[in-house]
Amino acid sequence: MIKFVMLRHGESVWNKENRFTGWKDVGLSETGRAEAVRAGRALREAGFEFDRAYTSRLKRAIHTLDSVLVEMDCSWLPVTKAWQLNERHYGALTGLNKSETAAKHGEEQVKIWRRSYSTPPPPMSLDDPEHPSRDRRYADVPRQALPSCEALSHTVARVQPYWDQEIAPALRAGQRVLLAAHGNSIRAILKMLENISESDIVELNIPTAIPLEVTLTPDLKFVSRRYIGDEAMIQAAVAAVAQQGKAK
Amino acid sequence: MIKFVMLRHGESVWNKENRFTGWKDVGLSETGRAEAVRAGRALREAGFEFDRAYTSRLKRAIHTLDSVLVEMDCSWLPVTKAWQLNERHYGALTGLNKSETAAKHGEEQVKIWRRSYSTPPPPMSLDDPEHPSRDRRYADVPRQALPSCEALSHTVARVQPYWDQEIAPALRAGQRVLLAAHGNSIRAILKMLENISESDIVELNIPTAIPLEVTLTPDLKFVSRRYIGDEAMIQAAVAAVAQQGKAK
Repeated sequence: MIKFVMLRHGESVWNKENRFTGWKDVGLSETGRAEAVRAGRALREAGFEFDRAYTSRLKRAIHTLDSVLVEMDCSWLPVTKAWQLNERHYGALTGLNKSETAAKHGEEQVKIWRRSYSTPPPPMSLDDPEHPSRDRRYADVPRQALPSCEALSHTVARVQPYWDQEIAPALRAGQRVLLAAHGNSIRAILKMLENISESDIVELNIPTAIPLEVTLTPDLKFVSRRYIGDEAMIQAAVAAVAQQGKAK
Repeated sequence: MIKFVMLRHGESVWNKENRFTGWKDVGLSETGRAEAVRAGRALREAGFEFDRAYTSRLKRAIHTLDSVLVEMDCSWLPVTKAWQLNERHYGALTGLNKSETAAKHGEEQVKIWRRSYSTPPPPMSLDDPEHPSRDRRYADVPRQALPSCEALSHTVARVQPYWDQEIAPALRAGQRVLLAAHGNSIRAILKMLENISESDIVELNIPTAIPLEVTLTPDLKFVSRRYIGDEAMIQAAVAAVAQQGKAK
């Protein structure tokens, strides 16, 4: 059997402010930093060891990974920072407060924008200084590959080739992989691996900073998944993430 | 002109205890963590930008780099962790207190072990659990390339091909490089670039966590070097490192 671990970043300062974040590069909150440390300790105490790590180009995921590696005393691990593992791009909603948007457009519209499989939010203008094509961190990415907005289907479309070309070969080679990413890039991988339906994936909530171990067959077919850590904490985290995006 | 920046890690817990460290993976002291933050701020305030970073497989250098990237808000930079940039391997002296060793063997013998260009300290036993061949972080390195002890000449012999094959091509391609490493791997690079004599290199002290900008011609011939930051702080740091290794 092949096993790997995925980890959503700890709480960011915009998770805390209940704003649409997407590709905006916001840092971890104090709570998020503590969550990352806790995740690293949970993995260490459960006896995990890794050979390499993947993360996104967004610091909330990178700093979560850095803290985990410190706690596991393996900061020397090779780390790849892949734009393909970034959060879903929230287009013109980026930076808006979720509760305000829900109060204005209705909870149902917000739920569609947040969770529809294939309906993207309105696009970010190419002239917007926040557009990825204006950010030097993506200078190595073909311009036409950089999103102006994404539904989950678009996130899957960029995550899938990265999985096939980079992560799957590492797993087949026996590498023990840790992947620190975002709610929707993790959801994209689970959808691919488990062949989850477009409606069910909407309801699958990924809690922050709870390590998720996935077991695959030697030919990378899905077998099972489980969260690593204290059971009460896991349940509380899963319940908390389901509350996000409701009007308050 | 081509410019790049080198940075020796901040004070480690063993620098503080005045022990021979080499490949022992000790962390930064509280002072060292503060030094790393200060180095990152100095680079940010001086307007530096980088395209990629290199470091060793030792956490005092990796964590120094991580802090610099946080301060410069570019944690997304690609980072390569190369064993070739590790500190000089101190062989059987690893872990010994420098002052005690000086009191026992004499300051001159310690100075030879610390600073001779080609006389290595006594080797670490292959049976020693601390030997690099027993450490999974070096599993990808050919066994015969892993040292049991090194003089600076041996460090140069492993740094040089890495410079030629990895760093020099990145510089020629226009990449702005930051290199977070160790006293002796930095010394090895300066010796190569500046063609410093075997006796002079012994007297060249690299202070902790003071960014050193090196300017090269387009065909990578040495032009000049300068420390980045507050002048009084630089002088104090250079003076402090010259005191290490004397019997107290």
